Amino acid sequence: MRKKLKQSFIDQLEGIVGSKNFSTNEIDRIVYSRDASVAEGVPEAVVWPESVDEISQLLFLANKERVPVVPRGAGPSLSGGPVPLRGGIVIDLSRMKKIISFNEKDLQIHVEAGCVITQINNFLLKQGMFFPPDPASQDVCTIGGAISTNAGGMRAVKYGVTDRWVQALKIVLPTGEKTWIGTKTRKSVSGYNLAKLIIGSEGTLAVVVEAILSVYFVPETRRMIKAFFNDFESAGQATFQIMSKGLNPSIMEFLDEYTLGAISKYTGANYCRGKAMLLIEVDGSRDEVERKLPKIEKTLKENKGFEIEVAADDEENLKLYSARKAAYPALASLSLTCDVEDATVPVSRLPEMLKSIERISKKYGVYIGTFGHVGDGNIHPNLLYDERKKNEREKVEKAINELFETAIKLGGTLTGEHGIGKAKSNFMKLEHSPESLQLMKSIKKAIDPNNILNPGKMGLM
Amino acid sequence: MRKKLKQSFIDQLEGIVGSKNFSTNEIDRIVYSRDASVAEGVPEAVVWPESVDEISQLLFLANKERVPVVPRGAGPSLSGGPVPLRGGIVIDLSRMKKIISFNEKDLQIHVEAGCVITQINNFLLKQGMFFPPDPASQDVCTIGGAISTNAGGMRAVKYGVTDRWVQALKIVLPTGEKTWIGTKTRKSVSGYNLAKLIIGSEGTLAVVVEAILSVYFVPETRRMIKAFFNDFESAGQATFQIMSKGLNPSIMEFLDEYTLGAISKYTGANYCRGKAMLLIEVDGSRDEVERKLPKIEKTLKENKGFEIEVAADDEENLKLYSARKAAYPALASLSLTCDVEDATVPVSRLPEMLKSIERISKKYGVYIGTFGHVGDGNIHPNLLYDERKKNEREKVEKAINELFETAIKLGGTLTGEHGIGKAKSNFMKLEHSPESLQLMKSIKKAIDPNNILNPGKMGLM
Repeated sequence: MRKKLKQSFIDQLEGIVGSKNFSTNEIDRIVYSRDASVAEGVPEAVVWPESVDEISQLLFLANKERVPVVPRGAGPSLSGGPVPLRGGIVIDLSRMKKIISFNEKDLQIHVEAGCVITQINNFLLKQGMFFPPDPASQDVCTIGGAISTNAGGMRAVKYGVTDRWVQALKIVLPTGEKTWIGTKTRKSVSGYNLAKLIIGSEGTLAVVVEAILSVYFVPETRRMIKAFFNDFESAGQATFQIMSKGLNPSIMEFLDEYTLGAISKYTGANYCRGKAMLLIEVDGSRDEVERKLPKIEKTLKENKGFEIEVAADDEENLKLYSARKAAYPALASLSLTCDVEDATVPVSRLPEMLKSIERISKKYGVYIGTFGHVGDGNIHPNLLYDERKKNEREKVEKAINELFETAIKLGGTLTGEHGIGKAKSNFMKLEHSPESLQLMKSIKKAIDPNNILNPGKMGLM
Repeated sequence: MRKKLKQSFIDQLEGIVGSKNFSTNEIDRIVYSRDASVAEGVPEAVVWPESVDEISQLLFLANKERVPVVPRGAGPSLSGGPVPLRGGIVIDLSRMKKIISFNEKDLQIHVEAGCVITQINNFLLKQGMFFPPDPASQDVCTIGGAISTNAGGMRAVKYGVTDRWVQALKIVLPTGEKTWIGTKTRKSVSGYNLAKLIIGSEGTLAVVVEAILSVYFVPETRRMIKAFFNDFESAGQATFQIMSKGLNPSIMEFLDEYTLGAISKYTGANYCRGKAMLLIEVDGSRDEVERKLPKIEKTLKENKGFEIEVAADDEENLKLYSARKAAYPALASLSLTCDVEDATVPVSRLPEMLKSIERISKKYGVYIGTFGHVGDGNIHPNLLYDERKKNEREKVEKAINELFETAIKLGGTLTGEHGIGKAKSNFMKLEHSPESLQLMKSIKKAIDPNNILNPGKMGLM
């Protein structure tokens, strides 16, 4: 499966990117052996290319020698996506972070894959615009990584996930060939939708090196509102009603009791009330927002929401937003390992899913704190344990199995936004038919016949 | 390339669907030899299956015998998509038109591929909902056809094209295997995005037999506004400004002088003013619409729009909408052949594109009436001629060549919504790199190695 790289190959690699952009030393290799999940795999070399041509040469060479290549952005993946399971080379694209051009007439920005989302937004905000996908890791994650996982985030509930905002991609194929796919136009049905195939393919089909993104106007105003609930049914019902009344919230988040406790401890504020909190944002023009807020308040009240509070100003908005953003670090601070899953179900099945999570937590004796983008049915159960302890690992594994089985039974999916990577590789057959899996494998084989690109991921090859 | 079907094969076909759903008679074969374009190809048999299992058996058999299979909805395609260029079997799905279920909680509807879009909307309207994609042929076209071409329409400018509204698809592969692809959840990044690959693949990869669509709430109100312009620059500038001010119109249409003349003649109303008309609709809540209309009016005025008129009520709305809907039949009534193209450019390049169309019309002496979804940069130049006359055909061919070359030079695409089919098959290399074309061919070959599904289309195999 894995072979040691020949010295001549290593020399050629170094020749392509130059010694300052190349390393085989142990510290670098260990640094690149992990992402933010528990997956591990040590590469034999790490390269930091500075141009598309270098990447093209790297792939041509690796393909000729059948050496695994794992493209990587900043590595905040929670699924093991950028972990080099079969060794080989990690291509870190984070030095390719130029904003190449901005086309304000067509609301498009052309960037290199290593640009960080917040870097792009800092640029756009000066023009009154923004790139809507907002994965939790937006301050560190690269746009290449976001594209490779079709990243979502809190505001996906209104603005959709990454693929809605990608116009065109420059990619390098496993052969080293370069090409643009997609279009600069707002509509096109010219040939197969290659861009949508590459988006979310986790670096298994091509290396994304540049992107033309579409962007949008920063809304005139944004306002948050929160409410507590004494049971999941009421919170789920409120969510469903807000989503189905066409109120189009820009954020629609859920946090359970356990998570609220963790946040309270972590931030010093006190969010400990009832069993759950909903946190909702509406954005748009001032009159639109003013019109929607009372409707949301009314819906929350009708569903037994209490301590309903509308943020009075930007400062209060930010306080609520920050509390929600603290959920993951707060939970992660409670134990050595925090395995954040993202099983996702149709919105109508949320109350069942939430109750199942409670049941699974008790059944296996595993602490689970759950929060997430409930408006999209996309929740994050965080399993807290110590990965060094075998008995804890085993309990968690069983709990995760049952989580996925439950989500699929409810018409859901293994992952709403984190990707399959290694973590969910073995579960693919729970969700996808043998025919669908075979289709994916055929596509992988057609585009990357030597299986050099991110091998061992997504249950493929 | 093409072989006569053996009697034993024909008998097997008939055995699968039954004699009432099967024909090899000449009239049926001729009926199914064309769509709404000038492409032609006579099938050897036509079948009207009534179940997914029948389609599965048909494909299994055809694949074994290497017989071409062309899936077809209602056939209003303008690109030759459903025309059986290499004979074989046409599978007409229009008898599979059951609305299987409606899930009001998740805003999803499960339908058979032969359902007509208007049939689906008639059902949904009773629930206060609608399926937003609105191709001009919505009263006749099937959802299967719309999915196969990723159909757009006037309201795509706000609501996006078909792929945004498709959750999951049941497909039959060339082998006869059946599978679901996609998801019922609002977000999923589980494996390759097979659904987005199949959408728009024009029946070359699989036969779409059922779909789960997401739907949306009918807006509280809709209101149209029109303005005339004395030059394309002003109309283009007004379009660009309306699109870039975040006013989010639900319709943003352009009609040129020639088209306005044709509509006037066809409908009896008089729309002959200046060089062009813009027709805009905003929808949403009453206050949202009331707030946007004056902003649009102002923008139109600032760009030298004249006779600006806001529809006073639903009746006036409908009058304007109907005038726009009359554009194609009105132009088509002026000559034997009306070749409607849909070259599409980035919105900022519209004035250049429109001026080029005028230039090309004069250069080749071909009447061209242009209208279209200008907010998406998606315009329809209609070339009027008599396809029986060789010299006219030749002039039109040259004009079309130059139209496509111009669109591509301006950063555009061959087709915004009609598809490649046969009509634009030879132009694929203008838009796509050899590497991209090779990618498409590899995918086709991986999924349909015997090239039985809609062969000879999209510049593939």
